[in-house]
Amino acid sequence: MESFLAVHLLVEIAATIAFAASGLVAAARKGLDAFGVCIVTGVAAFGGGTLRDILLDKRPFFWVHQSGWLWALLLLCVVAMFVMRAHHLALTEKAIQIPDAFGLGLFSALGTAAASQAGMPAVVAVFMGITTAVFGGVLRDILCNELPKAFSDHKPYAVLAFIGGWILLALEYWQQPKWVCLLIAAAVTTALRLLALRLDWRLPAWRVR
Amino acid sequence: MESFLAVHLLVEIAATIAFAASGLVAAARKGLDAFGVCIVTGVAAFGGGTLRDILLDKRPFFWVHQSGWLWALLLLCVVAMFVMRAHHLALTEKAIQIPDAFGLGLFSALGTAAASQAGMPAVVAVFMGITTAVFGGVLRDILCNELPKAFSDHKPYAVLAFIGGWILLALEYWQQPKWVCLLIAAAVTTALRLLALRLDWRLPAWRVR
Amino acid sequence: MESFLAVHLLVEIAATIAFAASGLVAAARKGLDAFGVCIVTGVAAFGGGTLRDILLDKRPFFWVHQSGWLWALLLLCVVAMFVMRAHHLALTEKAIQIPDAFGLGLFSALGTAAASQAGMPAVVAVFMGITTAVFGGVLRDILCNELPKAFSDHKPYAVLAFIGGWILLALEYWQQPKWVCLLIAAAVTTALRLLALRLDWRLPAWRVR
Repeated sequence: MESFLAVHLLVEIAATIAFAASGLVAAARKGLDAFGVCIVTGVAAFGGGTLRDILLDKRPFFWVHQSGWLWALLLLCVVAMFVMRAHHLALTEKAIQIPDAFGLGLFSALGTAAASQAGMPAVVAVFMGITTAVFGGVLRDILCNELPKAFSDHKPYAVLAFIGGWILLALEYWQQPKWVCLLIAAAVTTALRLLALRLDWRLPAWRVR
Repeated sequence: MESFLAVHLLVEIAATIAFAASGLVAAARKGLDAFGVCIVTGVAAFGGGTLRDILLDKRPFFWVHQSGWLWALLLLCVVAMFVMRAHHLALTEKAIQIPDAFGLGLFSALGTAAASQAGMPAVVAVFMGITTAVFGGVLRDILCNELPKAFSDHKPYAVLAFIGGWILLALEYWQQPKWVCLLIAAAVTTALRLLALRLDWRLPAWRVR
Repeated sequence: MESFLAVHLLVEIAATIAFAASGLVAAARKGLDAFGVCIVTGVAAFGGGTLRDILLDKRPFFWVHQSGWLWALLLLCVVAMFVMRAHHLALTEKAIQIPDAFGLGLFSALGTAAASQAGMPAVVAVFMGITTAVFGGVLRDILCNELPKAFSDHKPYAVLAFIGGWILLALEYWQQPKWVCLLIAAAVTTALRLLALRLDWRLPAWRVR
């Protein structure tokens, strides 16, 4: 158990940094100024969980009673603006794919569990898990005036959080301990995402075009 | 009364499908993937009512305690991705104009009534009615990275919900039964919308250009 | 004290008109129709405070129990659509810079004070002040399908609200009367903004490009 909690914390930190870094790269690509960089980075990191909490009417947001995260974020942005060079952008995008996959697994499982505890029906809980993991990126792209990548790149991402969410609910239904539900659901989603990246899986495209 | 309720339910279902279909068409035009299609379709169908409930601080959202709607939506998206062809898009857009006009009338009247019952001032209640009927489409266009059609096509749409909202409040003020208020307000808005489509009415344009 | 309150009210009205006018100009530039103009103008004027209240879970919004503002807004939009000509747009943008600077100071100080009273940690309170003053403009640009100017014009704006917020919290910490905190924080932010406009200060750019 204790080692589970330590791993949980490590994954959470690594994944949040990966989400934040995706915001940094997007902001740099758009040439945003210092304020834009901080907001887009912050929204990429915390936007999904915040939107979930608005939909569930849960306050305070986690970044309110753990406001250290906001300081860490400001620091990250300031440092990045000084040390990042053009060739770092593609490198960063490559490097964050793996912690991002862990974030997808962990945050969608956490979001589904939170919504399920708040008494939401199963399909809503799964949707809240997806929201937690994916909508930070969607909001990031809206702020950058781009078509959201999660909607349009035809790679399995949110779909895997969907699968992980149902696994978590099934395990909860069979009354497994909370940490087991979380671990298995997150592991399956993350493993599928890593496989999808490795094997370059594609979602079926519209037959409209 | 009973037949009123049956008609109400029929109109609600037809209009929700029309709103959802507008999301489907927009998502197909943008070539979104399966996840993007589901989200844009869902937001087009339920985004207006959800935004109203966030502004009124009303939980749970109606799609939470009637989560069957979400299953219906998922089913609609999956089926559409398999059966839709390019020439269906324009056909769909044409076919949904009429149920959409009924949705404009019904949902703006329902939204105004809900806000009025929650004790909002008249002008706020009317605005909440417009939000319910129109902001699903606005959010759909924002997610698709388009200028919202409701803001820019110079056709009477939200303006008619504005008129219907004031009619509803006037009838409530004269203490008509709730279903009479709803019926008349919705009918006037819908009739005006159908007329506007038929006669190709235009809103006055800026004299700036 | 009494004269402070009178000045406060005057600044609030002038600044709200300036914020609304920024929405009007943006909507006119995009050629929006009557509904789009009203919504974009309203969001530019009240969006920042509304978003702050959603994040703090504070209801009713101030425009709900002072719904006269909404009537004033509607009137402003209708009049503008009739009297505005193309050459007015640039004039308006120039003319609103000064009341806008006062709005930046006043609304960021008010927002920080409101969040601090709601028990938020310091860094969150400062962020809420920035949200109040700046996010109306961000939402305006998102509705107009533009990259938010506050993120990308490399001029000091939100950054000055950040400085003002910390000054307010420092004065609160040293137990100054509420109106003194507000006055000094707002004055510093506004003065810096006017200086920044006059001397054409620029934020440091990314070294990425």
